[in-house]
Amino acid sequence: MDDNGTVQAVKARISKFRDERDWLKYDTPKNPAIAISIEAAELLEHFQWKTDEQISRFLRDETKMNEVSEELADVIIYCLGFSDVLHIDVSEAVERKLNKNREKYPTTKQQLAT
Amino acid sequence: MDDNGTVQAVKARISKFRDERDWLKYDTPKNPAIAISIEAAELLEHFQWKTDEQISRFLRDETKMNEVSEELADVIIYCLGFSDVLHIDVSEAVERKLNKNREKYPTTKQQLAT
Amino acid sequence: MDDNGTVQAVKARISKFRDERDWLKYDTPKNPAIAISIEAAELLEHFQWKTDEQISRFLRDETKMNEVSEELADVIIYCLGFSDVLHIDVSEAVERKLNKNREKYPTTKQQLAT
Amino acid sequence: MDDNGTVQAVKARISKFRDERDWLKYDTPKNPAIAISIEAAELLEHFQWKTDEQISRFLRDETKMNEVSEELADVIIYCLGFSDVLHIDVSEAVERKLNKNREKYPTTKQQLAT
Repeated sequence: MDDNGTVQAVKARISKFRDERDWLKYDTPKNPAIAISIEAAELLEHFQWKTDEQISRFLRDETKMNEVSEELADVIIYCLGFSDVLHIDVSEAVERKLNKNREKYPTTKQQLAT
Repeated sequence: MDDNGTVQAVKARISKFRDERDWLKYDTPKNPAIAISIEAAELLEHFQWKTDEQISRFLRDETKMNEVSEELADVIIYCLGFSDVLHIDVSEAVERKLNKNREKYPTTKQQLAT
Repeated sequence: MDDNGTVQAVKARISKFRDERDWLKYDTPKNPAIAISIEAAELLEHFQWKTDEQISRFLRDETKMNEVSEELADVIIYCLGFSDVLHIDVSEAVERKLNKNREKYPTTKQQLAT
Repeated sequence: MDDNGTVQAVKARISKFRDERDWLKYDTPKNPAIAISIEAAELLEHFQWKTDEQISRFLRDETKMNEVSEELADVIIYCLGFSDVLHIDVSEAVERKLNKNREKYPTTKQQLAT
């Protein structure tokens, strides 16, 4: 789905879910910013106390991998919900940030056109 | 761009930026999970100590709004970078999580087809 | 106990618990730094989506209050464990930071001697 | 100072600093809970992308070590400020949590009296 669905399509599904529950009123936007932090910590919790070797082993387990995907989905759901409330074009914001990082961390390697 | 670009296109731009700098080796994936948490906190910092009224006033300032967009971009860059390393289809993971949430938080409202 | 116990006494109880389980090896100190962040998010989770009114009502409930105290204890346990591993005198570090903040945020109010 | 100062003495210095600036009104307590999370992330940032070897080397640098101590102090300042607002006895909360953890993670090793 990442291959053929637009970012807007994902945002639309998230907004639809929210609006069906009349939850827009909670997106203050301080609340979703808090939610992003909390969900990010829940994602991080899966890797806590583990070495890189233990992590790569545990990611071969499909159940664990699904749990990690679900936590990542939570972070992204709140990020896209937040972007919707503030009318932020995520693709554009990412592009702008990557351009800024290109100046900060220049590469001497010949850059191929995308 | 969210309207016409796929999620995969955004992921590809992020992976290209990373590969041009040979940074894949840092995506352990414990490191990007840590990065997501740190960037989420930097986003939250913009709303810290502020009331909802102060926040809506401060978001009318274009400079502030750009700063917030940039912090959100950072969270998303690490989320998509993380998803790339672990081969997680973000659109699918979001869809699966929304379906799970639909069961957890049912709505009696008639649901419109998308 | 805060009234008559030293900070060192609390630190000693935490280190003793850790050493009885031979857990010092996990305090890398990257790991406890990660743990502090995760526990901080679990504390924050108790206030998520709630207004200040809802929070003050919910804190009148003793069970809820105990849960909040327990999450705060977790953050402090990892903070003091971290300080033990790095030989940081917490009282001194706090004093130094408050002095720095005093210069940053001067007060014109007459300051009473402690 | 950890050796001879009580936890209450540290809390009192933090509350005094706050009250001299009339900042109690901001301790809602949702705000300090948010602050704990943000400061925890700033502490974690010092260890970001670094291996354990790089971290132990960088902690031999006194300037770096002072920066880390300062970030830890920030987390603790907000934790103790939070505990003050909610009348939580930190030493007692830590003791209670350690006892709970003792049941969860029993040890067969003979336990020495403190």
